[in-house]
Amino acid sequence: MAGTGVFSEIIEGEVYKYYAEGEWRKSSSGKSVPIINPTTRKTEYKVQACTQEEVNKVMEGAKAAQKAWARTPLWKRAELLHRAAAILKDNKGPIAECLVKEIAKPAKDAVTEVVRSGDLISYTAEEGVRILGEGKFLVSDSFPGNERSKYCLTSKIPLGVVLAIPPFNYPVNLAVSKIGPALIAGNALVLKPPTQGAVAALHMVHCFHLAGFPKGLISCITGKGSEIGDFLTMHPGVNCISFTGGDTGIAISKKAGMIPLQMELGGKDACIILEDADLDLVAANVVKGGFSYSGQRCTAVKVVLVMESVADAVVDKVKAKVEKLTVGPPEEDCDITPVVTESSANFIEGLVMDAKEKGATFCQEYRREGNLIWPLLLDHVRPDMRIAWEEPFGPVLPVIRISSVEEGIHHCNASNFGLQGCVFTRDINKAIMISDAMETGTVQINSAPARGPDHFPFQGLKDSGIGSQGITNSINMMTKIKSTVINLPSPSYSIG
Amino acid sequence: MAGTGVFSEIIEGEVYKYYAEGEWRKSSSGKSVPIINPTTRKTEYKVQACTQEEVNKVMEGAKAAQKAWARTPLWKRAELLHRAAAILKDNKGPIAECLVKEIAKPAKDAVTEVVRSGDLISYTAEEGVRILGEGKFLVSDSFPGNERSKYCLTSKIPLGVVLAIPPFNYPVNLAVSKIGPALIAGNALVLKPPTQGAVAALHMVHCFHLAGFPKGLISCITGKGSEIGDFLTMHPGVNCISFTGGDTGIAISKKAGMIPLQMELGGKDACIILEDADLDLVAANVVKGGFSYSGQRCTAVKVVLVMESVADAVVDKVKAKVEKLTVGPPEEDCDITPVVTESSANFIEGLVMDAKEKGATFCQEYRREGNLIWPLLLDHVRPDMRIAWEEPFGPVLPVIRISSVEEGIHHCNASNFGLQGCVFTRDINKAIMISDAMETGTVQINSAPARGPDHFPFQGLKDSGIGSQGITNSINMMTKIKSTVINLPSPSYSIG
Amino acid sequence: MAGTGVFSEIIEGEVYKYYAEGEWRKSSSGKSVPIINPTTRKTEYKVQACTQEEVNKVMEGAKAAQKAWARTPLWKRAELLHRAAAILKDNKGPIAECLVKEIAKPAKDAVTEVVRSGDLISYTAEEGVRILGEGKFLVSDSFPGNERSKYCLTSKIPLGVVLAIPPFNYPVNLAVSKIGPALIAGNALVLKPPTQGAVAALHMVHCFHLAGFPKGLISCITGKGSEIGDFLTMHPGVNCISFTGGDTGIAISKKAGMIPLQMELGGKDACIILEDADLDLVAANVVKGGFSYSGQRCTAVKVVLVMESVADAVVDKVKAKVEKLTVGPPEEDCDITPVVTESSANFIEGLVMDAKEKGATFCQEYRREGNLIWPLLLDHVRPDMRIAWEEPFGPVLPVIRISSVEEGIHHCNASNFGLQGCVFTRDINKAIMISDAMETGTVQINSAPARGPDHFPFQGLKDSGIGSQGITNSINMMTKIKSTVINLPSPSYSIG
Amino acid sequence: MAGTGVFSEIIEGEVYKYYAEGEWRKSSSGKSVPIINPTTRKTEYKVQACTQEEVNKVMEGAKAAQKAWARTPLWKRAELLHRAAAILKDNKGPIAECLVKEIAKPAKDAVTEVVRSGDLISYTAEEGVRILGEGKFLVSDSFPGNERSKYCLTSKIPLGVVLAIPPFNYPVNLAVSKIGPALIAGNALVLKPPTQGAVAALHMVHCFHLAGFPKGLISCITGKGSEIGDFLTMHPGVNCISFTGGDTGIAISKKAGMIPLQMELGGKDACIILEDADLDLVAANVVKGGFSYSGQRCTAVKVVLVMESVADAVVDKVKAKVEKLTVGPPEEDCDITPVVTESSANFIEGLVMDAKEKGATFCQEYRREGNLIWPLLLDHVRPDMRIAWEEPFGPVLPVIRISSVEEGIHHCNASNFGLQGCVFTRDINKAIMISDAMETGTVQINSAPARGPDHFPFQGLKDSGIGSQGITNSINMMTKIKSTVINLPSPSYSIG
Repeated sequence: MAGTGVFSEIIEGEVYKYYAEGEWRKSSSGKSVPIINPTTRKTEYKVQACTQEEVNKVMEGAKAAQKAWARTPLWKRAELLHRAAAILKDNKGPIAECLVKEIAKPAKDAVTEVVRSGDLISYTAEEGVRILGEGKFLVSDSFPGNERSKYCLTSKIPLGVVLAIPPFNYPVNLAVSKIGPALIAGNALVLKPPTQGAVAALHMVHCFHLAGFPKGLISCITGKGSEIGDFLTMHPGVNCISFTGGDTGIAISKKAGMIPLQMELGGKDACIILEDADLDLVAANVVKGGFSYSGQRCTAVKVVLVMESVADAVVDKVKAKVEKLTVGPPEEDCDITPVVTESSANFIEGLVMDAKEKGATFCQEYRREGNLIWPLLLDHVRPDMRIAWEEPFGPVLPVIRISSVEEGIHHCNASNFGLQGCVFTRDINKAIMISDAMETGTVQINSAPARGPDHFPFQGLKDSGIGSQGITNSINMMTKIKSTVINLPSPSYSIG
Repeated sequence: MAGTGVFSEIIEGEVYKYYAEGEWRKSSSGKSVPIINPTTRKTEYKVQACTQEEVNKVMEGAKAAQKAWARTPLWKRAELLHRAAAILKDNKGPIAECLVKEIAKPAKDAVTEVVRSGDLISYTAEEGVRILGEGKFLVSDSFPGNERSKYCLTSKIPLGVVLAIPPFNYPVNLAVSKIGPALIAGNALVLKPPTQGAVAALHMVHCFHLAGFPKGLISCITGKGSEIGDFLTMHPGVNCISFTGGDTGIAISKKAGMIPLQMELGGKDACIILEDADLDLVAANVVKGGFSYSGQRCTAVKVVLVMESVADAVVDKVKAKVEKLTVGPPEEDCDITPVVTESSANFIEGLVMDAKEKGATFCQEYRREGNLIWPLLLDHVRPDMRIAWEEPFGPVLPVIRISSVEEGIHHCNASNFGLQGCVFTRDINKAIMISDAMETGTVQINSAPARGPDHFPFQGLKDSGIGSQGITNSINMMTKIKSTVINLPSPSYSIG
Repeated sequence: MAGTGVFSEIIEGEVYKYYAEGEWRKSSSGKSVPIINPTTRKTEYKVQACTQEEVNKVMEGAKAAQKAWARTPLWKRAELLHRAAAILKDNKGPIAECLVKEIAKPAKDAVTEVVRSGDLISYTAEEGVRILGEGKFLVSDSFPGNERSKYCLTSKIPLGVVLAIPPFNYPVNLAVSKIGPALIAGNALVLKPPTQGAVAALHMVHCFHLAGFPKGLISCITGKGSEIGDFLTMHPGVNCISFTGGDTGIAISKKAGMIPLQMELGGKDACIILEDADLDLVAANVVKGGFSYSGQRCTAVKVVLVMESVADAVVDKVKAKVEKLTVGPPEEDCDITPVVTESSANFIEGLVMDAKEKGATFCQEYRREGNLIWPLLLDHVRPDMRIAWEEPFGPVLPVIRISSVEEGIHHCNASNFGLQGCVFTRDINKAIMISDAMETGTVQINSAPARGPDHFPFQGLKDSGIGSQGITNSINMMTKIKSTVINLPSPSYSIG
Repeated sequence: MAGTGVFSEIIEGEVYKYYAEGEWRKSSSGKSVPIINPTTRKTEYKVQACTQEEVNKVMEGAKAAQKAWARTPLWKRAELLHRAAAILKDNKGPIAECLVKEIAKPAKDAVTEVVRSGDLISYTAEEGVRILGEGKFLVSDSFPGNERSKYCLTSKIPLGVVLAIPPFNYPVNLAVSKIGPALIAGNALVLKPPTQGAVAALHMVHCFHLAGFPKGLISCITGKGSEIGDFLTMHPGVNCISFTGGDTGIAISKKAGMIPLQMELGGKDACIILEDADLDLVAANVVKGGFSYSGQRCTAVKVVLVMESVADAVVDKVKAKVEKLTVGPPEEDCDITPVVTESSANFIEGLVMDAKEKGATFCQEYRREGNLIWPLLLDHVRPDMRIAWEEPFGPVLPVIRISSVEEGIHHCNASNFGLQGCVFTRDINKAIMISDAMETGTVQINSAPARGPDHFPFQGLKDSGIGSQGITNSINMMTKIKSTVINLPSPSYSIG
């Protein structure tokens, strides 16, 4: 159970501690932040409301720890990460429990998130050993006018202190996808978890603690955004920010200055369906892509763009599948569970009502109880409706009927977002040419958008982000290049 | 005109000289080898019949020249290659003329071969500057138990003397695809051109001579295989053999010992046609793939495997196109020209007669005049016919009707050869899964097999060869790795 | 002569035009910006003072041109760049003349800058063909739990519109080092040249015009920073900023938001001299490194950190060489020429006076006439003097005597800057371990800091910048990743 | 204990079985091959004398198993390898015991070999996941004249059946360095262990059996070289040979034909010592490099080339250290143990006697008991002595005094071998320039030659081998390239 057993040291009274200098600590603020269970709408957990002074301490400690960590052999860094991965998997139960209570994630999915996170850490460790252990050896005589008398060795070296800010929907997985790369690359890591999901994140951090990382190298700060948000992101001790979330990311990037940024913000992933598509495959992917975790995924299908001639068939097949979705509490492993906050539910409802007024066809009755919104497919959506462009982050999915492929591509590209998109067609030429034409970071051919497998590149274009993620790219992003040039007194050529 | 103008120094009397130590020389043998024009079947040119002693001299000179060349800045090597490329293109006329006379290549194609060869040399130069100029810088602490006290620098260094043996069908292009990589990588190069095509090759070599390469670095030996063939390929001075041709390659590889080999031998490229294919695209590619340069191409379509339900349609469309092919002398730029030798024509005829006896359907009447064979499509070919498995290297193309995709894949994979193959289908899943299943070096989806573009990898599996070609792979193949390890007295980590 | 011959169309009356939509235009502002010759301190040239409206037009045009350019074959992009490089070299005379007049660059160096820029463009073209032409092909079964049913193709694609802001000291070379990568990668390019150097830049841009790039793809805006500076850098049409210069870069980066940044700002490159160093080599490099182009180079040696035991010898040797430096106008090819502006000269004088007051030893008399400052070596500089930390960007060089290597490393690392550094020692172990310990983007062993050869990585750490330059890294920086994932209905493995 | 516990199933009576089709089997020959303990010179173990028929069966099984294995997800292949690594480490005791008995390896070194082998397998698994999981994605418009209408996907695919032949001196480690790469790359593996070391190898193979690899994928054949040696190496079922050993390798390569070869044969690693070298470091490395495992290492220091002026000092320091070497049975963990066979001891003695006759100075008395030869340093060796050029593979080390660096380099390069070499100097310029000039696969600066760490490239030039090893290179070597080209009907460019 959360906060018990090996985790008993991370809580005192009913308030979870924060993690600094290798210890679990109470904030000197004496204040806490409540975490509301989306299902019960009651306070489930409390976490420390850390102070700016505590942030300063953490930054100092991180800087010092990083200097030593950067001088630790790569295989030792990897060994510690493998250990953390194993401990995380061993403790999947209590961590998954937090995910159920904090973010209403269906029970099985919650367990999957933790296990997948362990795999991600291990893969990251091995990937980083290779990326950090191999530089380039360049010679000068490639360039016109030069003899071979300069030998240049390039290395990837750590950035320093990485600030990781994951979102509520995958507070464990999208934390370790930042922590793993940061650590194997030789950085220190300061984690600011989302409020919903903070307790799951604290449990996860404890697994790293138990693995035996040096003190100060990893920290986890909880608290109110209004108090420590800007203070953290603008802190001079931060050398890199890796953020996943919403619009806040744009604000952060405007204040960040000369700091490498990895931002993954929202998306409005389009699903373009051609006439020759396998419609059963389409329906399965639309439902999975649109309604998994109640649509609260960056890469959820957020608008269906279907050729008119197959639109009725697609809508019918999707409807049939939507009807089979179970709706209820995450503990019962329902497909559709309450959305994360009341304000989120209200926002979703606003989009739905706007569409209704403007004449969208509701394939199901709209129904809401508290934060729980029943899955809803909206047909005949038109570009003048907000839901055609905005991201509900909930179990409501608009269908726009298109009369040409170009219309579909145009709608996709007219969005401010550019995360992923997908196209369903059997035709190899169309598949590739449409994929080339869609202005999104990734295009899935014949499948719903998806973040993984985690070693694939993952990136948002336009307002969807900056930088590419995926294990390899994240490690690279959290390094910088340093070069050493050996200047010889006369040219030398290697002979054999 | 061949042998005149800037080329007048490469011929004396009516015999072309060989190239050694930066000079055009007559062989001390006093003998020559005649080159028969496939169209007229009369001696068109004569080349020197070099002696083993002359081979020895060339090898010595190559070794000495290579030592200095390996210490020449990369950009200077590239500069010379760019110059050779320009000279080659400037002299496309006389060289193409040789191709017409020696190998009956249609006039326009002959010019194209020369121009494309110039492009290839330039691209190779720039590619090599990058490949040779960049090694790896590895550190020791990637591997368990090691501190970071060993810094390993790896370089690609030249092999030494490369022996290049191109085939008759592209005596210029498939020579420069070996010469370019060899030279930019810092090797010396000894060329043994095919008998048919030797004079074109000598002209091409003269362009390198005019570009100003150091003496001895490039040589071109002509003569009788029986006299100098094995002597060359087993010569202890040879450090690499790059061969394109037929079965001889297997014999060479059995005698070569510990010498890196790049072999591209025969092929029996299959063309699998599915029911959903674009049949006009199919017909165009079958004709182009099967009959270009009278089928005398490694990557010619050599067997058509078509689904029964579309077989009649495909055969009809191909027949219609075959009828439009022009047949005659290369000077008139005919599509179908005489095959390279009488023995080749006889061999082709043997395959055709075998198929006839065993019941193949002839879509055209079989017709031959001298070395000129009219294009012939053979339908209803069955696995018991020789032409189902053997490579005609002529303008005759067997069609096998299949009742399942699996049957097509099976036929393709039952061949001893594994050069290329192609599959025609609109279906993205089938296209990829069939490509994955075909055991050939390359599979073309919706196009006939092809060697180029020249930077793509190109390789034969099974009896079709060893090693991968294409510009990048050929350069890599003509280098070896050398490493330097700097051992530090205590661990050091690069910090920044 | 500047502004004549092929360049006559870029000037009207005495005011140089700006370049937009493939044309040379006058600004509707009717105003011009004068460019003061540093030597004469009189107006030498005038350029257009463009308006915000004109910036908007340029951005629109750039966006449109980029869409078509991104669909142009790589080899065609390269061909145009090669042509521009050739035209640039052909016109080195008039462009170098501008450099002499605008920034007082010694005449021969000015010619070298132009020629080297041509080489850079050509190398960039070929490099880009390779970087843009090769992506990765990843399969899903690398990651635990996945079958091989997802094939991921990654490409590097252009960012869109790149804003290039080069500095005054290499207004041609540091412009083409941004223009070349931007263009070959498929971007449009808007150039904002420095005021001093603007006319050289306009001439250079005209070479691209003459090469035949599509209209709108390249633009060059001149004007007052106060009017269009922030407007340009914060323009929503900009997708990437590549800036070389001073503190302004930090300000730009704070406003840039989610835009990829390549910043190369100041430096305070240290030269650490050990007791076993080759002191003649040291002296030659200190003088070249410290006084070339009157110290107005990012990678100039800006502080000498010499072991006490060899300090007298080093100072003597350097003094002897400094005395031989010629001082005077750039037209006479003097070593030391006037610094770029009067305010720059005043700033340098301020540093010198501060050091004098605090007791530094002047190895030469301080002398200044207008913007011309005689070369000055300051011995016995101590950390409390401003010149120990600040960047004079002039011909004055501080020497700090150190009693241990650690002291030298500490001084180097205590700087806010981290561009380059150098260490002189014969000892292989010390050379590498000191290089590893110096927190700068590059460390030169046994040579003065240097930007080139241009294919080497080049980067500043800390306040010296963000991102790595050098041809390869700049091209990569001006691209983003896009991936296409082909989802198969069942696993497939490539077999052969 | 060997052959007991989990290993009891690999022995029946006193004869160890061979491994085929996932089972431990007795040969139908009814014959066995005795393994003589080098220390006792008595039969220690017996292994099966397999027949050619059994080889045929194994090859058939391997081919079939490989087809399925090549379709196994990469992570599953890796998982099995990790399991085998763990089992191997768990059973280090009995395996090390075999090494002591079969090859007289000192007890602690024997344990180290097994443990290091486990690490190697795990590292290989992770490396292979990355190499096999990532191909290239090339587009056609890089090459002049092409539009972007061809998309080429390249993969590395398995070769088929790999024949691994390791040497006696590291029968476990140099077996797994072939097995690991072969398996992770999707190949089947047939192991022919050396006679001495066969039983250790059989135990090691059992660890793979216990890990649960599919039957037939791994086999281990024992027997007489005269019976099955050529039969194996020339077997048509073999698709790759990885051999480590002596001259036999050259014979194998002459018969192999078009089969990829990885050969690591002998060496005569030179140690060049300059006047400025750290002589204590030199002495430590000469002794370790020359006498570890009684000199029976490919990368042993095999000739010392020392500058005359420091030769006395070096010889004295080495002598002092040699005197401290313990001599005796491997069970007592002596430094010097009996050499592997009597014929080997005789050969060594022959070299020593030749040197004595020709006037070499013996720094110790020559002493031999059975296969045990006391360590011997031979000073004043001259080029006319056999030991100056031949490889003793025993604890005898020649010192040649040189009067210039060039003389040292010349001696090194005059050898037929070119495995590794080393140079001792403090001078960074000399270190690098001498390394560049030595014609060996690797040059160690300031350390004795060494194979590891195992991820570093490792290769012999000239008669020392073909191909590069080290984990990464071995995996690459055991794959071939396959490409798929998607041909689009019109050009397409990826946009975003």
